[in-house]
Amino acid sequence: MNKLTATALSMTLAASTPALAEDDRKGLASAPITMGDVQAVSPALAKYTQDALLGDLWKRPGLSPRDRSVVTVAALIARNQPIEMPYHFNLALDNGVTSAELSEIITHLAFYSGWANAITAVAVAKDVFAARGIGAEQLPEVSPTPLPLNEVADAQRAASVEQNVGPVSQGVVQYTNTLLFKDVWLRPGLAPRDRSLITVTSLISCGQVAQITYHLNRAMDAGLTREQASELLTHLAFYAGWPNVFSAVPIARDVSEKRES
Amino acid sequence: MNKLTATALSMTLAASTPALAEDDRKGLASAPITMGDVQAVSPALAKYTQDALLGDLWKRPGLSPRDRSVVTVAALIARNQPIEMPYHFNLALDNGVTSAELSEIITHLAFYSGWANAITAVAVAKDVFAARGIGAEQLPEVSPTPLPLNEVADAQRAASVEQNVGPVSQGVVQYTNTLLFKDVWLRPGLAPRDRSLITVTSLISCGQVAQITYHLNRAMDAGLTREQASELLTHLAFYAGWPNVFSAVPIARDVSEKRES
Amino acid sequence: MNKLTATALSMTLAASTPALAEDDRKGLASAPITMGDVQAVSPALAKYTQDALLGDLWKRPGLSPRDRSVVTVAALIARNQPIEMPYHFNLALDNGVTSAELSEIITHLAFYSGWANAITAVAVAKDVFAARGIGAEQLPEVSPTPLPLNEVADAQRAASVEQNVGPVSQGVVQYTNTLLFKDVWLRPGLAPRDRSLITVTSLISCGQVAQITYHLNRAMDAGLTREQASELLTHLAFYAGWPNVFSAVPIARDVSEKRES
Repeated sequence: MNKLTATALSMTLAASTPALAEDDRKGLASAPITMGDVQAVSPALAKYTQDALLGDLWKRPGLSPRDRSVVTVAALIARNQPIEMPYHFNLALDNGVTSAELSEIITHLAFYSGWANAITAVAVAKDVFAARGIGAEQLPEVSPTPLPLNEVADAQRAASVEQNVGPVSQGVVQYTNTLLFKDVWLRPGLAPRDRSLITVTSLISCGQVAQITYHLNRAMDAGLTREQASELLTHLAFYAGWPNVFSAVPIARDVSEKRES
Repeated sequence: MNKLTATALSMTLAASTPALAEDDRKGLASAPITMGDVQAVSPALAKYTQDALLGDLWKRPGLSPRDRSVVTVAALIARNQPIEMPYHFNLALDNGVTSAELSEIITHLAFYSGWANAITAVAVAKDVFAARGIGAEQLPEVSPTPLPLNEVADAQRAASVEQNVGPVSQGVVQYTNTLLFKDVWLRPGLAPRDRSLITVTSLISCGQVAQITYHLNRAMDAGLTREQASELLTHLAFYAGWPNVFSAVPIARDVSEKRES
Repeated sequence: MNKLTATALSMTLAASTPALAEDDRKGLASAPITMGDVQAVSPALAKYTQDALLGDLWKRPGLSPRDRSVVTVAALIARNQPIEMPYHFNLALDNGVTSAELSEIITHLAFYSGWANAITAVAVAKDVFAARGIGAEQLPEVSPTPLPLNEVADAQRAASVEQNVGPVSQGVVQYTNTLLFKDVWLRPGLAPRDRSLITVTSLISCGQVAQITYHLNRAMDAGLTREQASELLTHLAFYAGWPNVFSAVPIARDVSEKRES
């Protein structure tokens, strides 16, 4: 019986257990929200959570539970929603996301979501890591050997940034070309495909449609399949809300059509 | 003397009472923010709150206090702002929003704002409901008899979704056509006009302009008057900020003109 | 040794001190996040914070530490992120932002970010002010003598609002022309250039691109230099995330080119 089935069952059987924040009672909010709390406000929402989300969405093929956890965690950080972080950080670790990968996800999203989003995630993750005995040796190095740079592709990217951003802000150009693309993106603690997956997730989750084209193409170049992209949208309908997904659809469609032709 | 006048007066007379979170001292933040707290940081903001908001905006004709509460609660959930939820959930119940309606608003916005937004609202609402002795019998059923479906209109909607979303994500199509429009939208616990009102509120409050046209038309088809739509924008200028309202104005104008011609 | 250097050093020397929320242990979250907490989750993020942010970004010419604090505080309020407010409200006061100015920033952003954003900031600022012994005499008056109105420019602005917003919502027109531009914007507690700076910051930080053109022009009319605008974008890449800045770049470029020709 996998973790999700067990969780869904435990919700059904014992509604008063802290099902939404199982392993961490020291999150940002005063106390974890339990499935019993949800039922006390909306029995229908509790049912949708059990049946549509945990019992159906998370079990769909096309995106593994591990990838769904990566996407959910990234959406929560990008949208700065600590209330579900304790539950989903723990679920991610149970689903095969390593502590090193979760650490890298938080670091990466400091740049794509904003510094305070990462600090909010730190406030939750430190307790999750402590409760699981995750120490420094299970976290990525500060300055690891970087992945090899694709010089040709990066030169094109840098030329585009210089042309578009250069006339307005050389500071943005400088940090983009050095710190972001020659440092953060080359950190080996998270596979390039996963790094792109959380970047696209962050963009869709915050309605930042202007950058989806570049990063969805980059994600698919790095191995994200068309079926996975389709399921990413399906998954985010629930975690980022329907409107953000509907706004991303025309761009995803355009990317898909151009890659086929 | 209605509730708002009483509240405004009590703020004037006793600035140290917890005027912004009157009935709930166990909200997400450590302690409720009082009008005295606001004065300790910005006497001007306290004055604007008393005079422009409570003393003027909430008393304008065109939108009833009950509808203003529906809109305010939806804006706070859509923008994930727990700090004012205890005060406004209580005010909504005082203004005639039923506990069943508040429950449905939270459930509905899980789909339009994202799941974690609804869970944040649950964390506040459970305490508000408990303090008022609101139990399961005052909440909507899990699976009530659905409202009748407008088959013709829904077939058009479904065809549009299939055409636009279908090529990119059959998962999104499936959940949209079954779970969202043939289940959530047909729940009888919230009038279709109110369901559309909170959907439009959510879209405007988060700057999600792309979906306003469809949902504002749907709201007006369901009975939202032009004067109410005008006051919705006025009300949201304060609760979602001026820029979100200014971004919605051209779309609202376009909808209005097309409905007249 | 200036405050930032001292802070960066203290982070290096004593990672367990509450470096990110130095002076306020009663913020919204249960406990302040320390640099040691960041290291326990991501040693790399701690390093980027020390080296790229505190050791480099904040020391760049083009925008003074005082202006960087104004911008950072405005971004945190606009994005409703209390977790870093205790640290940055204190840093702002150390960097020369007066308590009266911080009070006005919160008041102003109630209108541009939404009322609950300002109340969230109040919840943090009241403790920061109390810890520093900042009382009513150091805060702006409720109804000070307003700054003189530029009648010609404001008549143009009002005509544009009447033309665009008038057909949809006379309520929005009324509050915009009286409360917003003939009251809030004329409060003398914050220089017009700073008021525009936080307005532009709020718009960029929330991806509200539609209003940037008007307010960036207004900021530059009020004295914001082109170099400062360039550094504003650089600074916000870290505090609002890269995508929001990249979305603002084409508009900033357009404004810049039109002002030159």
